Amino acid sequence: MSKKWVYLFTEGNKDMRDLLGGKGAGVAEMTNTGVPVPPGFTITTEACNEYFKIGKQFPADLWNQALAALAVIEEKTGKRFGDPENPLLVSVRSGAKFSMPGMMDTVLNVGLNPQTLEGIAKLTNNERFAWDAYRRLIQMFGKTVKGIEGRKFEHILDKYKAKTTGKQDTDLTVDMLKKVVDDFKALYQKELGVEFPDDVHKQMSEAIEAVFASWFGKRAVDYRNSQKIAHDLGTGVNVQTMVFGNMGNDSGTGVAFTRNPATGEKVMYGEYLINAQGEDVVAGIRTPKKIAQMQEEMPEVYEQFVQISNQLEKHYRDVQDMEFTVERGKLWMLQTRTGKRTAQAAVKIAVDMANEGVISKEEALQRLDPMQINMLLLPRFDDKAKKAAGVLAKGLNASPGAATGIAAFDADTAEEWGKAGKAVILVRPETNPDDVHGMLVAKGILTQRGGATSHAAVVARGLGLPCVAGCEAIRVDADKKLFVAAGKTIKQGDYISIDGTTGEVLAGQIATIRPDFDKEVDLVTLLSWADEVRRLGVWANADYPKDALQARKFGAQGIGLCRTEHMFFEVERLPVVRQMILNASAAQAKLDTLSRAEAELAKRPDFKDLQVAVANAKKATKASLEVKEYEGALKKLLPLQRKDFEGIFKAMDGLPVIIRLIDPPLHEFLPSHDELLAEVTTMRVLGKKGKKLKEAEEMLAAVESMREQNPMLGLRGIRLGITYPGILKMQVRAIFEAACNVQAKGHVVKPEVMIPLTGHVNELKVSQGELEAIAKAVMAEKGVEVEYKFGTMIEVPRAALTAGEIAELAQFFSFGTNDLTQTTYGYSRDDAEGKFLLRYVEEKILPSNPFQQLDTVGVGQLIEMAVKNGRAARPGLEVGICGEHGGDPSSIEFCHKAGLNYVSCSPFRVPVARLAAAQAALGAVVRDK
Amino acid sequence: MSKKWVYLFTEGNKDMRDLLGGKGAGVAEMTNTGVPVPPGFTITTEACNEYFKIGKQFPADLWNQALAALAVIEEKTGKRFGDPENPLLVSVRSGAKFSMPGMMDTVLNVGLNPQTLEGIAKLTNNERFAWDAYRRLIQMFGKTVKGIEGRKFEHILDKYKAKTTGKQDTDLTVDMLKKVVDDFKALYQKELGVEFPDDVHKQMSEAIEAVFASWFGKRAVDYRNSQKIAHDLGTGVNVQTMVFGNMGNDSGTGVAFTRNPATGEKVMYGEYLINAQGEDVVAGIRTPKKIAQMQEEMPEVYEQFVQISNQLEKHYRDVQDMEFTVERGKLWMLQTRTGKRTAQAAVKIAVDMANEGVISKEEALQRLDPMQINMLLLPRFDDKAKKAAGVLAKGLNASPGAATGIAAFDADTAEEWGKAGKAVILVRPETNPDDVHGMLVAKGILTQRGGATSHAAVVARGLGLPCVAGCEAIRVDADKKLFVAAGKTIKQGDYISIDGTTGEVLAGQIATIRPDFDKEVDLVTLLSWADEVRRLGVWANADYPKDALQARKFGAQGIGLCRTEHMFFEVERLPVVRQMILNASAAQAKLDTLSRAEAELAKRPDFKDLQVAVANAKKATKASLEVKEYEGALKKLLPLQRKDFEGIFKAMDGLPVIIRLIDPPLHEFLPSHDELLAEVTTMRVLGKKGKKLKEAEEMLAAVESMREQNPMLGLRGIRLGITYPGILKMQVRAIFEAACNVQAKGHVVKPEVMIPLTGHVNELKVSQGELEAIAKAVMAEKGVEVEYKFGTMIEVPRAALTAGEIAELAQFFSFGTNDLTQTTYGYSRDDAEGKFLLRYVEEKILPSNPFQQLDTVGVGQLIEMAVKNGRAARPGLEVGICGEHGGDPSSIEFCHKAGLNYVSCSPFRVPVARLAAAQAALGAVVRDK
Repeated sequence: MSKKWVYLFTEGNKDMRDLLGGKGAGVAEMTNTGVPVPPGFTITTEACNEYFKIGKQFPADLWNQALAALAVIEEKTGKRFGDPENPLLVSVRSGAKFSMPGMMDTVLNVGLNPQTLEGIAKLTNNERFAWDAYRRLIQMFGKTVKGIEGRKFEHILDKYKAKTTGKQDTDLTVDMLKKVVDDFKALYQKELGVEFPDDVHKQMSEAIEAVFASWFGKRAVDYRNSQKIAHDLGTGVNVQTMVFGNMGNDSGTGVAFTRNPATGEKVMYGEYLINAQGEDVVAGIRTPKKIAQMQEEMPEVYEQFVQISNQLEKHYRDVQDMEFTVERGKLWMLQTRTGKRTAQAAVKIAVDMANEGVISKEEALQRLDPMQINMLLLPRFDDKAKKAAGVLAKGLNASPGAATGIAAFDADTAEEWGKAGKAVILVRPETNPDDVHGMLVAKGILTQRGGATSHAAVVARGLGLPCVAGCEAIRVDADKKLFVAAGKTIKQGDYISIDGTTGEVLAGQIATIRPDFDKEVDLVTLLSWADEVRRLGVWANADYPKDALQARKFGAQGIGLCRTEHMFFEVERLPVVRQMILNASAAQAKLDTLSRAEAELAKRPDFKDLQVAVANAKKATKASLEVKEYEGALKKLLPLQRKDFEGIFKAMDGLPVIIRLIDPPLHEFLPSHDELLAEVTTMRVLGKKGKKLKEAEEMLAAVESMREQNPMLGLRGIRLGITYPGILKMQVRAIFEAACNVQAKGHVVKPEVMIPLTGHVNELKVSQGELEAIAKAVMAEKGVEVEYKFGTMIEVPRAALTAGEIAELAQFFSFGTNDLTQTTYGYSRDDAEGKFLLRYVEEKILPSNPFQQLDTVGVGQLIEMAVKNGRAARPGLEVGICGEHGGDPSSIEFCHKAGLNYVSCSPFRVPVARLAAAQAALGAVVRDK
Repeated sequence: MSKKWVYLFTEGNKDMRDLLGGKGAGVAEMTNTGVPVPPGFTITTEACNEYFKIGKQFPADLWNQALAALAVIEEKTGKRFGDPENPLLVSVRSGAKFSMPGMMDTVLNVGLNPQTLEGIAKLTNNERFAWDAYRRLIQMFGKTVKGIEGRKFEHILDKYKAKTTGKQDTDLTVDMLKKVVDDFKALYQKELGVEFPDDVHKQMSEAIEAVFASWFGKRAVDYRNSQKIAHDLGTGVNVQTMVFGNMGNDSGTGVAFTRNPATGEKVMYGEYLINAQGEDVVAGIRTPKKIAQMQEEMPEVYEQFVQISNQLEKHYRDVQDMEFTVERGKLWMLQTRTGKRTAQAAVKIAVDMANEGVISKEEALQRLDPMQINMLLLPRFDDKAKKAAGVLAKGLNASPGAATGIAAFDADTAEEWGKAGKAVILVRPETNPDDVHGMLVAKGILTQRGGATSHAAVVARGLGLPCVAGCEAIRVDADKKLFVAAGKTIKQGDYISIDGTTGEVLAGQIATIRPDFDKEVDLVTLLSWADEVRRLGVWANADYPKDALQARKFGAQGIGLCRTEHMFFEVERLPVVRQMILNASAAQAKLDTLSRAEAELAKRPDFKDLQVAVANAKKATKASLEVKEYEGALKKLLPLQRKDFEGIFKAMDGLPVIIRLIDPPLHEFLPSHDELLAEVTTMRVLGKKGKKLKEAEEMLAAVESMREQNPMLGLRGIRLGITYPGILKMQVRAIFEAACNVQAKGHVVKPEVMIPLTGHVNELKVSQGELEAIAKAVMAEKGVEVEYKFGTMIEVPRAALTAGEIAELAQFFSFGTNDLTQTTYGYSRDDAEGKFLLRYVEEKILPSNPFQQLDTVGVGQLIEMAVKNGRAARPGLEVGICGEHGGDPSSIEFCHKAGLNYVSCSPFRVPVARLAAAQAALGAVVRDK
């Protein structure tokens, strides 16, 4: 007996994707739920493979099986293939295991010939429709099956359209269509030397072969290569009855969602047209009606449709996006698929369906991509303000979010203004890699040309910037530095606003608002379910009390990273900090020398006199102006830092707060070297003398002495702390004074002091003890005991490699995955993203930007190693992550698997992380992308 | 029975260090070889511990055992303790398990009192000697045992010395010494309230107690803390007969080496004095005679001494440095120890002793510190030139090597001149961390003050720079910028020369010479033995044919790193390279954009017109001036590079040559940003216009566009190669054209192409295939087949972590441990060494500078991982190291253990590496430090 090559839709189900392809399995599943699907059959992917294997011919018995299946369909529909009275027409479509949209071929209206055409004309009472269907068959068959150039058919059509008033397809009359058919047939004859086959069986067999052949078409092969889909899967071929919604007023067509895909509300949502085909809806000839109206126009059909749609939602356990046709009072479901929805709807639907018992809470949690939550919480334009401003133009919503700023028409200007702290929207005809330096500092990107995968769009999404791309409604004049839209001219420096979520461009500054988290009741519910499920803690990175409060509101269970140096940058503090640095640097160098001499002399008891001299010099240096000013500056900073910490401790009452001691290289606090150099050069050339020049020269010298070739790998973190221990001591004092003060007022404070950039355990050995002594001294002074920890960041590979040693001192680890990624790859993020990283990602040299998505293979290996060895040395070691990856769902999944205690992310990512952590705990993450 | 607290020298041996201390075990061992050692006994370390345990009193029976031992000694010597006729005098010395030089106490001449003094005077026929010995006993006993301040005794001595003409101890007459003794006794009585004990047993017991007590003296405790020696070891006490070489013309004293410690020649080497004590040799009263003369003056004693010294050398299996005394015709050996020797002598002695069969070849190999070989091959001053110049002054030989250059008296000047390419010797009164930037570029350091552990010395050794420190014979005037020495004034900018190996300072430029390796026959022999033993290959890093030839002469078995970019820096090529870079940068940016657009459009078949437009634009850009010039510059560089490679291939005929493709960031080839900025600013301020300004502005813009925050982590290595593939293609073509040309002439060429800085296997995937295709194409063109490999450097942690994947493509790995150390630690070497690294090493935060000595814990872990996983993926993978560590013995030991195939180091380190590799293979490395 020969192999079964053909399956009726009634014989398959959704689990047979390998054999029937995705479309075939889907339509079989739908058929088997009992809903009315136009009958048909699927030729298997095995048949396709066999077809190629035996030299491009149908496997034995394939055609007989197809004819047998066709007979079943004829019986079901009461129509007959090739019957002039009641003809059966079919579509022939491809359908591989994985969706390959537009990559393979489809032929519709197979079964039409001059005879059956008459039957259709009568049945639909629409001669024009029948002739149009026929010319479409010839065109599609000629182009797809026989490879005649499409533009040759278009050329003929254009000739007749030119004779009409509207110049549209729809303006062609029956007579014109008949002439089009004649010309098409003549073209066919001329190109191929044979006549267009009016033998319906020949039409079908050739169409099937065409679908097989398209599996190895150039487009399909390229697509599979790019998507890494195997070439030996083959495609299925689906032959399905065509139904017509234009067979009179008892016919119609429509699309509908089982729930509102914009809001998630549980009401049928969609539209339909009476006596129309699907393409009529698309062509917009008539305005469709709301689906609810069907209840009046076709009450029975409507009732059936509602029942079917409930059935489908229940069967597929998710919102369905359905296409249907009514042919002479009979409802046919053409397609159903999971409905795309907005983030807001996704949350509501998941929560509602769980509450309805359709899905479990766990499934509800798995229904969302955590990043959708991020969308929900992005700043949006205030709707009223937006309405008042009015939309100038609309382009592609290429990267979500709202941004407002002054327009800059070239990357250099954008960079200049951006670096000067201005909010800039970069506006370009299109962008290219030369513009990246401007994009890096812009708040948003607007381009006239380019699609959703254009350079601007890709880079903007990469950078997380709002972007409106391909906005053809504006005309950008890059030379004159302006654009025109809706008659309005926007010049360089004018305020504009863009909404990357909607693609809208607006003039002027539009206020943005953050959605009110508490009012997002469904989200709050969903996240409370997430909290029940997840093992991983979610903490937040926050430098200021207001951020800490925000984080807590979003559900943060602690502060994983409070960067103290941000506090130094504040305008009124910066001069104090600069003074401190300059004095510290000068005095510390002197003290260093003397201390070293002292240590050397201590080994030589015969050098008593010299010992005394050095000790005196040290005293003198300590008493010197520099040190006084250094220590004076530290003293001025102490109460400021203490106040900062008090605010954060209050906000996080009862929860742990990890404070990182000073990390960045000191020259970051000093003026720009290049500006100083230009200033000094200018003054010198102009022959200026006196105090101002001297001051500038001194500052330049100081900046130069601190300048580093590779500051990322230079004097920062604990290296800085060991070099200038005074700063760390001041910070630890401030932390514990604040902790004691706040705890004394009845709060519970849990400070955790974090030492950055440890690479060797000895760095902790020489610093941690001394700092802990200060903590104890402060608590003794204040008579208050607080629960505290001392720990370290793990952010260079060596720290991860020697985590066992480090954990003997450190009471907690926090992975600084930004720096750890930089050192593991040997990438400077600042340089890499502008110079080669985006290119690497686009060309798939890297699977993704490792600064956004944790590189689990390389960096992850170090993390796993450090967790294992750290916990071996100190059971119960608290381990978390505070790099930007803490807010990235796939990275969170890794952190869960690696056994971390928590992830710490920016406050607005806390809800995302809560959901992602729950999904990680649930194991299989289902993401609808 | 009570414990045995006392061991006669005849009862111990060298393995009893724990119990008898190092000195006690040593003297016992010597006694037991049968050589005549002044008899004595050792009180055990256990006795010392017990002494403290029971409250600072002698353990029961200790004193009795000591007296019993004393009786044995009396019998052996025929002298009696306290006997006025033939008195036995003893020394009482400390001796712990580990040597603690000068940290504990010694008392000599115990047993002298007014009665025995007379006996000694008679026996030595030297009343003055007897009185001097007595005053020394009182002084040493008073100071050491009783704690009277030493300066009080000195004060008395000074008073009498002042009355003499010579003002020296030796000028004191017998009468004066008698008065000194009276005054010393009065001082003793006054300070302690009791008389100086003339009871000889009391002298001995108190001296023993004093030695015990010194174990917990401050100096000893501090020393043990600093050296991490346990405090519970205790010290032994050695009581030994004193012998006198000044008992007439049948007495004498001397020191001798069994072989010449300067040259290694096998002849007795030393000097002696008739009728003299050891201190007389030191005091230089009389000029000692060469040891050979003893053959005439004391033939029997000499014969005995030669026989003993042979016996000792044989027993200890190494050159001995011996002290001896002849007392009335009787030879006494006082001490023998392994003789210190020069590097040259060390090599000769090891080879000779192996040839004599005294030691095995393996032991010979283990007798040298490999770095000694380095010393042998360092450039030295040409002796004639040095003699002609004359030595100006002599200081401490703080860091070896010879350097000549112009004197700079401050670090800033040194830096300025050094960066301008001048050879500079930094001269400072002393250095401190402020001077490091100047030290970094200097060829040598000279300081007036500071010892062998001073800042200058430590930093210089750290940097491998010659240094003469603490040269008090020069007077540095830092303000006037000059120094004066030997009446000569050296001003800033004058040429001087320093010999860090000898401590000599010379005026003017002295020519240096490299020793001729072939003439170092013993070294050549020793290294041939090393080659028989070692498993690890030794290759060299060489960029030029002359270096490759040198390396081969030194025994290199391949080139492990040929850096191609050095070839770009040559003066006549640099303008071509700069032109290439500027054009490459401009053209590549345009082509990049267009290629990206093309790729995007390829997915959109509906955008045919745009596709054509982009393809045309690409053609136009390719045909543009920039690209022509870019490609033109590459074409100009091709024959130059080919020629370089031909030279190296010829030099390395038959051996593998690893050529690294371009690595450094392109901006390294461009002019200095700061200079350009100052230049442009100046021109602008002066209102200059025209071509020159425009050119400068354009260059500044180009430099700025290529500038990076952290160039170490930026666009370099394979990232650069992927961005500008033209450069790599040119290089691979040059390599294979050269290889084919040289092989065609009858040589055997084994090129290995090395891709730098791989971090992700995909970087190889997108580049290696294309480059290998060029290799094959060139070989096909030339009709020559060469044996080649393609491989990669492993120099970022991620490469090591994913070595298994990378080895699937790479045919060899070479660890770039300089970069790997930078990224593993997160240190920029350029910044770290100037800012904190030396401090970290000095303060023992790091055990050593990880850029000099491989960090086996962190970096080594990555190497081991990469070797394991790389070889698992590709059995037999060739793995080597080409960082600077390849020439460091301890790092080589690690490489051996890690199973590497070879180490590659600078040519002059090849001999060092050969020996170090042999030692690693032999396992236990014995280093005499």
